Amino acid sequence: MKYFDFRSDTVTKPTQTMRDAMYRAEVGDDVYGDDPTVIELEKKSAQMLGKESALFIPSGTFGNQLAVLTHTKRGDEVILGDMCHIVMHEVGASSVIAGVQLRTVSAEDGYMNPKYVEKLIREEDIHYPDTGLICVENAHSSGKVMTLENMKQIYEIGKKHEIPVHLDGARLFNAASALNVKPSEIASYADSIMFCLSKGLCAPIGSMLVGDTAFIERARKNRKLMGGGMRQAGIIAAAGIVALDEMVERLDEDHKSAKRLAQELAKIKGVHIFEERLDINMVFCEIEGIENDELFVTELDKRGFLVNGPEMGEYRFVTNFWTPEDAVLALAKAIEELL
Amino acid sequence: MKYFDFRSDTVTKPTQTMRDAMYRAEVGDDVYGDDPTVIELEKKSAQMLGKESALFIPSGTFGNQLAVLTHTKRGDEVILGDMCHIVMHEVGASSVIAGVQLRTVSAEDGYMNPKYVEKLIREEDIHYPDTGLICVENAHSSGKVMTLENMKQIYEIGKKHEIPVHLDGARLFNAASALNVKPSEIASYADSIMFCLSKGLCAPIGSMLVGDTAFIERARKNRKLMGGGMRQAGIIAAAGIVALDEMVERLDEDHKSAKRLAQELAKIKGVHIFEERLDINMVFCEIEGIENDELFVTELDKRGFLVNGPEMGEYRFVTNFWTPEDAVLALAKAIEELL
Amino acid sequence: MKYFDFRSDTVTKPTQTMRDAMYRAEVGDDVYGDDPTVIELEKKSAQMLGKESALFIPSGTFGNQLAVLTHTKRGDEVILGDMCHIVMHEVGASSVIAGVQLRTVSAEDGYMNPKYVEKLIREEDIHYPDTGLICVENAHSSGKVMTLENMKQIYEIGKKHEIPVHLDGARLFNAASALNVKPSEIASYADSIMFCLSKGLCAPIGSMLVGDTAFIERARKNRKLMGGGMRQAGIIAAAGIVALDEMVERLDEDHKSAKRLAQELAKIKGVHIFEERLDINMVFCEIEGIENDELFVTELDKRGFLVNGPEMGEYRFVTNFWTPEDAVLALAKAIEELL
Amino acid sequence: MKYFDFRSDTVTKPTQTMRDAMYRAEVGDDVYGDDPTVIELEKKSAQMLGKESALFIPSGTFGNQLAVLTHTKRGDEVILGDMCHIVMHEVGASSVIAGVQLRTVSAEDGYMNPKYVEKLIREEDIHYPDTGLICVENAHSSGKVMTLENMKQIYEIGKKHEIPVHLDGARLFNAASALNVKPSEIASYADSIMFCLSKGLCAPIGSMLVGDTAFIERARKNRKLMGGGMRQAGIIAAAGIVALDEMVERLDEDHKSAKRLAQELAKIKGVHIFEERLDINMVFCEIEGIENDELFVTELDKRGFLVNGPEMGEYRFVTNFWTPEDAVLALAKAIEELL
Repeated sequence: MKYFDFRSDTVTKPTQTMRDAMYRAEVGDDVYGDDPTVIELEKKSAQMLGKESALFIPSGTFGNQLAVLTHTKRGDEVILGDMCHIVMHEVGASSVIAGVQLRTVSAEDGYMNPKYVEKLIREEDIHYPDTGLICVENAHSSGKVMTLENMKQIYEIGKKHEIPVHLDGARLFNAASALNVKPSEIASYADSIMFCLSKGLCAPIGSMLVGDTAFIERARKNRKLMGGGMRQAGIIAAAGIVALDEMVERLDEDHKSAKRLAQELAKIKGVHIFEERLDINMVFCEIEGIENDELFVTELDKRGFLVNGPEMGEYRFVTNFWTPEDAVLALAKAIEELL
Repeated sequence: MKYFDFRSDTVTKPTQTMRDAMYRAEVGDDVYGDDPTVIELEKKSAQMLGKESALFIPSGTFGNQLAVLTHTKRGDEVILGDMCHIVMHEVGASSVIAGVQLRTVSAEDGYMNPKYVEKLIREEDIHYPDTGLICVENAHSSGKVMTLENMKQIYEIGKKHEIPVHLDGARLFNAASALNVKPSEIASYADSIMFCLSKGLCAPIGSMLVGDTAFIERARKNRKLMGGGMRQAGIIAAAGIVALDEMVERLDEDHKSAKRLAQELAKIKGVHIFEERLDINMVFCEIEGIENDELFVTELDKRGFLVNGPEMGEYRFVTNFWTPEDAVLALAKAIEELL
Repeated sequence: MKYFDFRSDTVTKPTQTMRDAMYRAEVGDDVYGDDPTVIELEKKSAQMLGKESALFIPSGTFGNQLAVLTHTKRGDEVILGDMCHIVMHEVGASSVIAGVQLRTVSAEDGYMNPKYVEKLIREEDIHYPDTGLICVENAHSSGKVMTLENMKQIYEIGKKHEIPVHLDGARLFNAASALNVKPSEIASYADSIMFCLSKGLCAPIGSMLVGDTAFIERARKNRKLMGGGMRQAGIIAAAGIVALDEMVERLDEDHKSAKRLAQELAKIKGVHIFEERLDINMVFCEIEGIENDELFVTELDKRGFLVNGPEMGEYRFVTNFWTPEDAVLALAKAIEELL
Repeated sequence: MKYFDFRSDTVTKPTQTMRDAMYRAEVGDDVYGDDPTVIELEKKSAQMLGKESALFIPSGTFGNQLAVLTHTKRGDEVILGDMCHIVMHEVGASSVIAGVQLRTVSAEDGYMNPKYVEKLIREEDIHYPDTGLICVENAHSSGKVMTLENMKQIYEIGKKHEIPVHLDGARLFNAASALNVKPSEIASYADSIMFCLSKGLCAPIGSMLVGDTAFIERARKNRKLMGGGMRQAGIIAAAGIVALDEMVERLDEDHKSAKRLAQELAKIKGVHIFEERLDINMVFCEIEGIENDELFVTELDKRGFLVNGPEMGEYRFVTNFWTPEDAVLALAKAIEELL
């Protein structure tokens, strides 16, 4: 049976073009700086974001933690939203690797009030750590996209207090598409940006850390420390180049699919769609009338739909390149039948 | 000129009885376990709190960080209130020493809603750190005392999920006095407790970490690691014994002084007392009509009153053993005159 | 001009069979455990080493650090040779990530005297950290292979004191080839083993961490923490399978090439070969009569040979799959001419 | 029964003058910088060592770890002797608190060959941590005193490579006495110095960290982080002032006692004195003919002598202010009888 996978966009397989590019990729030892394909990907990434330099890394978590490690000194405080990926889904890594203290702003749907952010910045006092970094996330994993205005305000607070801003842009291009702006516009409000080549862009492996050259050179050494120095990385970088060349522009299709799915689901009695978080390729909803979540997931599986169970009471369905419109409609129908 | 010091109760000097006790103190090398006065203090502390064992330590911050280090493994998450001392005033130490991630509950005036606490406890998931510890603070540094009911609920949540609870009881005896319960009743809702011999109890140096014997033995080794193994510590432990014997019962006098001060200040136009945080020996207030805080502080200094400038807009005045009723009345009068 | 690269075996490019395998690789989201190719590689790796389980990781440094993190608790002491890769070439990572103290045995050419190892194991004492791990390295980066007897003795010391042994087997298969034993025989004297699919085995990216299932499951979570959770990793795992299937048996050819090169170089006046470290695919030598190392390297480059400058006075030339016998002879000749 | 304690000089009780000074000590809250006695002790300490500033701390281990934390950034490498206190007897603290990598020079009797030290300093390379600190120890806990020449050579290497040098001078004044130089001469070959007021100087609690003002100010904040900010610390600082005023000059008496003890012990058959490590107040020896070390220690205890059991085969006997000549002779006699 053919399966359609709505669990996440991390499940996206590489496209045929990517396979072709990887097959032909010219490679070298990237730790020696010899891999032409990696170099090309890093150059392209920096250019697209309007920054000086970029670094290829094995995952989004790796990139966020590398940024935290490189921006801060041990014991610094990092200000970020309480529901962001670094706090919620990175296994507490920043306390292990960077040794920093996370200080969270209550951030409903990911929105960080700039006033609250500024209020958390520490003055000099013998009882206080230094505030070493502000992290923002756009698109936020709640499905919400932050406005340029919000990003700008936070960035200016950072500038005013000489605190760098890191953007967890795992889905940066989704945010750009939703805002209908260039990725570089979003990136202009951050000192460093991590974005993923996997997820909606369909590359099999890899993310990028982007920033100014001095920062990236320090990150390059820290990447080695964290075990992310890979050798003939051009193989997978080749897919990353295709991702940037071919997959960025089409992300709005995934967003449309998600909205279409939401429309269909909204018609079903007992389904409550969180409309305000329908900015990208994710549909969040509460579904009344499911007696047994595990059974519900299993029944959908039997019908050819892979979905995750609810997290804090919410179901999340994610669309991607490999989700045709039929599949979207069929999922909604299957859910209707099951309820 | 004689000064009265309303900055904090950390400024309390030792009493004459303490000086006498220190002078006569029998001592030994406490790292070898040879100091009889330290042993007596540890025994007395454990007994007063109804626990098995106790450990003498150089400061309250030391004790909190030692507890965090000893309860957790690196990378664990610690749940605690967002305005508590460990988050706010310990220089980010727990990210440096224990390497743990702080996860905060929004805690207005120190009150942690047990439901929110439980919601933050992590399930098993490859993206999640383990929840390794819950920290509570009573009396809270906001001036508020938590109820036994609140402590019990949080402790039971800890028990249910097999997560230890540490109590930052820097002002434990103030809390006990305010609640009119034995300190051991409060301590019964925590697995480990740190309390200070300095502050309201007037000992010059030192705090205690209390818990079961297995925990305290591990903490004893970690105390050595953190550089808190002291030698003839009986000298200062002797003052600690006096603190427990003579100073605990009289803390309600400080609380009365604080309430008296609040009454007087409340009469002054422009002074807004936070009545709901008047549980112990601290008066928090906003004062309208001060044009220059620094000047205000200096003018009070000229009149013989030491006060701190405002923190986040609030003035705090703290009473202690060395604050006679006259001084309280005189401070109120001086403030009135200055406004 | 065609170049021959004697700098390291990390420079090896993937073989055509690997390119084919990667092109066709069936993939899935490995964080969800869905990637069949990764699963196959992990299964094969565990089997070859006679262990229960294995984990695919982005690099050798990643694997060593992951092993250290997973075996130890913060503050543990790790016993290892003073010239091993973890001490020398991993950017001090174990002090940053695992937070452990390295305690080194003086290890000429990588040989750790079991008696010295045992002497460093800590007893219980309030001044001592716990000894949490012993690390061995085979083949050692000095070019030397440790005997099974040596490994067995150290492993038995570990067993006796209940301390796990981790093997940095970046070049495990070179060691097995040199000793003419199965890789599983070497692996039987370690609790966990890291080996590289890149280097002599020519896979473009990736290493394996192997051990018992309980250990590997904890390592899997720590891999996520360290940012090594990759998505459609089957692409590169496919090359790893080819590496294990086709490239292991031929490593003795690289060793022969190295010995051949040593023979030729030994004929040149001024070249001193370290014969006792000629166990694998590396030739170490001192070369008299070079006035300017940088110039020497540049001149070889002009002639089509990539070599590194000397490290602590020694030149190292490394052979690999892509080094034909002609190239070996030609390098020796070029060096002769240059001197 | 009166006991004489040869276990360590850490067992020294305060003198009567110290008790008097503590009784009368003028105190204040040292975290606010209000304690005049602490200020006086810090000033005196800095002056005696010819440095700008000093900081009062609870223990020698605290001071060494504070120095390591303050001089380095996470992941730095620290060069030091393999038998020094920081490596051997501080519970692995520097891997937990500072997160640095210890790199040891083989140091027989504490002597670090300057050439070896320089050889370990890292160049810039993507595989290498930065060398952040060199630590020396004088007097060394082996009983040996390092020469000024040796200290100078290492300090100049530090200067040349812009790496600070920290001196663990737990027994700095013993070293000065043995070398017959001013403490400031020794201190002139280090950027920071920790020395103990306890041990031979008999203060009950406390050590000093000394260095330039910028360093000490950073250390002051890190002291707070590590929980070493004490309140009315003037009580114990008062004993420290007496220690510096009255106890420094008489340390040679302890050294003489130790030599006298060594002379007597050397006459006993089966006792081998390590003459080359008889520089201060410690006698190290091997004793043949003891069948049961525990029994030997117990028998001495019965006769009024406290001694530690052997560490790595060696007995150590330490003299101090409280060890009269009779006791020294009596101990030797008791040992003779027991053998």
